[in-house]
Amino acid sequence: MHRIEPQTGAAFTLARGQSLRVVDLEGEQVADLVAFSRAEPWERLSSGRSIDYAGRIYLTTGDLLYSNRSRPMFRIIADDVGRHDFLLTPCSPETFQIIYKTTEAHPSCLANLVDHLAPFGIAIDMIPTTFNIFMNVEIDAAGKLSILPARSKAGDAVTLRAEMDLIVGLTACSAEMSNNYKFKPIGYEIF
Amino acid sequence: MHRIEPQTGAAFTLARGQSLRVVDLEGEQVADLVAFSRAEPWERLSSGRSIDYAGRIYLTTGDLLYSNRSRPMFRIIADDVGRHDFLLTPCSPETFQIIYKTTEAHPSCLANLVDHLAPFGIAIDMIPTTFNIFMNVEIDAAGKLSILPARSKAGDAVTLRAEMDLIVGLTACSAEMSNNYKFKPIGYEIF
Repeated sequence: MHRIEPQTGAAFTLARGQSLRVVDLEGEQVADLVAFSRAEPWERLSSGRSIDYAGRIYLTTGDLLYSNRSRPMFRIIADDVGRHDFLLTPCSPETFQIIYKTTEAHPSCLANLVDHLAPFGIAIDMIPTTFNIFMNVEIDAAGKLSILPARSKAGDAVTLRAEMDLIVGLTACSAEMSNNYKFKPIGYEIF
Repeated sequence: MHRIEPQTGAAFTLARGQSLRVVDLEGEQVADLVAFSRAEPWERLSSGRSIDYAGRIYLTTGDLLYSNRSRPMFRIIADDVGRHDFLLTPCSPETFQIIYKTTEAHPSCLANLVDHLAPFGIAIDMIPTTFNIFMNVEIDAAGKLSILPARSKAGDAVTLRAEMDLIVGLTACSAEMSNNYKFKPIGYEIF
C-alpha cells in the first residue's frame, strides 16, 4: 500500500484493466482524483460528461467516469461509502484567498497535482474538475452547496478499474472544511 | 440584435467591459455559453471554480463566472429568469447515442461550438462544461438530475459583462429534453 502524506499528492500510470484502490486510512479524509489518456493527454476526466450520462451527481459502484471525449476512463467497481463529489475543482491557492480569506501560503490539491503530474507532461491548464473521493457536498433545493464532514471511516475504500491507459493524479486533500479540519494521509494500491 | 437559428451556433469576441445580452426569443430555449481568454485561450470558463466560489449551483445577477485560473471572466448583471445550469457539458454526438439511444446523425451544441470557434484557434479539447443559459436542471436529495422545460418566456434575457477580453461561443441548443422538444432561435446583442 502506497501512502500519500497529509496535504500532499502523487501521480502514476495505470494500464487498461488495472484497478486503483483508494483508502481513507484514518477517516473523514478526501482524496482528489484526476486522469488523462496516456495516448492523448488532452483527453481528460470530465465531470460534466460523467454526471450527464449517469443522470446523477453522486457516482458509485457500477458507474463510469468519462473523458471529455465521452469515452470511459474508469469504472467504479467497489465503494464502501457512496458519497463523493464531482462538482468542485481541486482546492487551489485562490480557493484559500476567496473562500477562506487566507492571505498566507497554504498547501493545495491543485499545486500538489501540478507538481506530481509535471513529469508526465501535464500542465496546470490541462487539469479539470477532479473526482473528489469521500468529499461530502450536499445541495439544498435552492442550489446552495454545503461541504460536510466525509462519511468515510478508517479503512473505507473505493476501487476504480481503468478503462483505458491512464496518467493519474491523486491527493490527500489540503482544504480545512472538506476534511473536518484535520489533515490525514490517503492510502492507495494498484493491482 | 443577432439571431442564432435553431440548432446552430455563433462565436465572437468581447472586449473587457462590453456586455452580452442573450435573449430567449420565443421561450423555453436553452443557449450554451463558453468563453476563453483572448490573451491565453487555454484559460477558459470553469464550472467548478464558479460554483465553488459562489457556494451555489444556480448563478444569477451579481455572480461571477470564473476561469480555470480563478480569474473573473463574466459578471451576470441582469437576469430575467434566475435558473441556469452550470453542471452539464454541451450536447454532443455521444449525448444522443448514450442518453437518447439515437443512431442517426444529430445536430449538437458541441459540434456547433467547434465549427464556430475554429477560426479563433479553439480546438475541441479546449471546450469545457458550458454555462447553459435558461437550462432548467433540478437535483433531488439523492442527487438525481431532472432536465425540465426552461422557465424562460419569450423575450426573457440574461446580460453578462466581460471582465477580461474574451473569445465567446454561444448556441441555440440542439437537445430535445432541454428545450421542451421544440427547437427555437436565440437572440444576442453586444453593447
